[in-house]
Amino acid sequence: MRVLVANVGSTSFKYQLLDMSTEAVLARGGMERIGAALSPMKHAVPGVCEVEKELPLPDHNAAVRATLDELTSPAHPALESLDQVDAVGFKTVHAGKLSGVTLLTDEVMAAMEEYSPVTPGHNPPYLNAIRIFQQVLPSTPLVGVFEPHFHVTMPEKARVYGIPYEWTQQYGLFRYGFHGASHRYLSLRVPEILGVPGERLKLISCHLGGSSSICALDGGKSIDTSMGFSAQSGVQMGTRTGDLDPFILPFLLDKTDMTLTDITTGLVKQGGLAGISGVGADMRDLEAAADAGNARAQLAIDVYVYGIKKYIGAYVAALNGLDALVFAGGIGEKGARIRAAVCADMDYLGLELNPVKNEQCFAQEAVISRDSSRVKVLVVPANEELIVARETARLVAELPK
Amino acid sequence: MRVLVANVGSTSFKYQLLDMSTEAVLARGGMERIGAALSPMKHAVPGVCEVEKELPLPDHNAAVRATLDELTSPAHPALESLDQVDAVGFKTVHAGKLSGVTLLTDEVMAAMEEYSPVTPGHNPPYLNAIRIFQQVLPSTPLVGVFEPHFHVTMPEKARVYGIPYEWTQQYGLFRYGFHGASHRYLSLRVPEILGVPGERLKLISCHLGGSSSICALDGGKSIDTSMGFSAQSGVQMGTRTGDLDPFILPFLLDKTDMTLTDITTGLVKQGGLAGISGVGADMRDLEAAADAGNARAQLAIDVYVYGIKKYIGAYVAALNGLDALVFAGGIGEKGARIRAAVCADMDYLGLELNPVKNEQCFAQEAVISRDSSRVKVLVVPANEELIVARETARLVAELPK
Repeated sequence: MRVLVANVGSTSFKYQLLDMSTEAVLARGGMERIGAALSPMKHAVPGVCEVEKELPLPDHNAAVRATLDELTSPAHPALESLDQVDAVGFKTVHAGKLSGVTLLTDEVMAAMEEYSPVTPGHNPPYLNAIRIFQQVLPSTPLVGVFEPHFHVTMPEKARVYGIPYEWTQQYGLFRYGFHGASHRYLSLRVPEILGVPGERLKLISCHLGGSSSICALDGGKSIDTSMGFSAQSGVQMGTRTGDLDPFILPFLLDKTDMTLTDITTGLVKQGGLAGISGVGADMRDLEAAADAGNARAQLAIDVYVYGIKKYIGAYVAALNGLDALVFAGGIGEKGARIRAAVCADMDYLGLELNPVKNEQCFAQEAVISRDSSRVKVLVVPANEELIVARETARLVAELPK
Repeated sequence: MRVLVANVGSTSFKYQLLDMSTEAVLARGGMERIGAALSPMKHAVPGVCEVEKELPLPDHNAAVRATLDELTSPAHPALESLDQVDAVGFKTVHAGKLSGVTLLTDEVMAAMEEYSPVTPGHNPPYLNAIRIFQQVLPSTPLVGVFEPHFHVTMPEKARVYGIPYEWTQQYGLFRYGFHGASHRYLSLRVPEILGVPGERLKLISCHLGGSSSICALDGGKSIDTSMGFSAQSGVQMGTRTGDLDPFILPFLLDKTDMTLTDITTGLVKQGGLAGISGVGADMRDLEAAADAGNARAQLAIDVYVYGIKKYIGAYVAALNGLDALVFAGGIGEKGARIRAAVCADMDYLGLELNPVKNEQCFAQEAVISRDSSRVKVLVVPANEELIVARETARLVAELPK
């Protein structure tokens, strides 16, 4: 079975084509800055070619068509024809109670529509991309692997908010959690690397990037995670706030002339690392600015690291101990300074980072703790696409023929 | 110096009169159900009398006058005349950036007015009571000992939210923290009980009651606390939500016909333990209901305990270890079951509760951990009035004559 995995952003589109008999990547690529005059595109067929070019991509429709052209290009064909795509798996984000692994039916897409206001950077571009695929590949199963799916194992005490229970039930206001494909991959890969049985491992996974979340994993199952009803809570993101006092929003509505939209837009696009620092959302820029003496850039880094440390501590309490801590995502894989800061002053856990191994590790699998460390610390590059492909293939294999 | 301490609720008024040369309580008492046809009142002059009666108290004005009458009653005088009250200290809650220990000037009261919308159950009755005292004792210094005051030692990384920094500064949207008098008292009393120097103690204090907050104390100083910009965040309260995803409120505004006031009222009055359980805000009622098989009552207890455990874990990470854990407040002092549940499965800290001592401890000072426990666990009845009296006396002593 061949599965095409689609990862859709507001102005980006990334894809992987996998052969599920071997889980080999047949092709991977993506485009950025869709809608600009020229958009950069990368496409690779492992062992065959690596293409980089710029082309006019006015919208996601053009991006999807360019992807399918590239996949079937006679110059370096990953597919002979589009009929060979057995399913398309989407790393979809939020459909409330329908957030499982599911065919993208009208009902599911209506639920995505309903939750668009709380995932404004995610659901709308996915809905758009799914509709394009419905036209371009009308007879191919389209599957949503929703990010909360992995977190369905969370106990109710971790899922419920202190709001009137009628609201919880009527409007589905639970802690859903996100980055499910990433945390699931880490839950599987870490025990393999450590050579220990996964079902006994107490693990905390830190997916740190433009979007960040922490997950507590007991025997491979998510028991809690830092994102909640929306992807707006938990630790600070590039531009999203992270956790916030519930009365900040009503206070701003009451005391300023900002509208609700002004405020929620600010919370999504002008908060987080960018909001605190005033420098931007990119950790490399923040570190450079902090080194040059920018106090707000340093503050943003400090707030971010401190938030991660507190979630780790909270989840160690939830797990009653910790065997391993793993970093993934752009910052988690490449940010040696952030990893070192998170792991500093964790003596109480017997956590000892190996500073040399940490410094040397850049976007590759590695154990970066000392041999004597009671808690193993790892870096594992995220592989959300593999999980989306697996879940998609599993669902499609179960469909009635 | 004699200081009268006033603790004001929406329909209650409690007071203590202290002689600050000895810190002896000269009188204490209070009224409930102000505004009802008859309000119960208690008044005690230690060693002299304990009075319980019911009287008509249509408003706080009547309550204040009844208090002053009782204090100067010829039958059991705590004071010969009201001139002997050298200052009145109020356990005030929120005045934004002015939330220190301060004379209750027009400027401070205007700030309290400004923050009334985020402390609807606290600031309005205090403002009312302060105005009554201004009339009744026009020449006596009135001092606000604001609850955030103790938390000014929090580092900026613990005070800043991931919102646009301009909002933080312009509108004072910091994590302030509350229950300052309670946490300060615990920070002083625990090292006395343990016979250790306070300046090296890593302590977490749990003030658990109708209103609950957790505080991380490093060498006696608050470095973090679970309440934030408002008293609405942190663990669940009797009827207040505790932490909430930032997008729940906009989602409810968007998807329901509730107004902002409907929602914020729900978050303040119909959330928390009462909201989850549907049984009420009183932990004794919840425990009885849970024992009788009420699943939502058990869920409310589980959510509450789990939230406390996570804050403890987070603060152990912030402190890089823990020497002592202390419980105070109505639930903290009397709730042996809650204390046992919070302390269960904390082996990773070497925390061992002594179940017999825990069970026997009811509203009294006690060490309730085993002798072998690496973390000492204590119960210490809250004494916020003493702190308010001390801070008031200190400020008044410094006033120009």
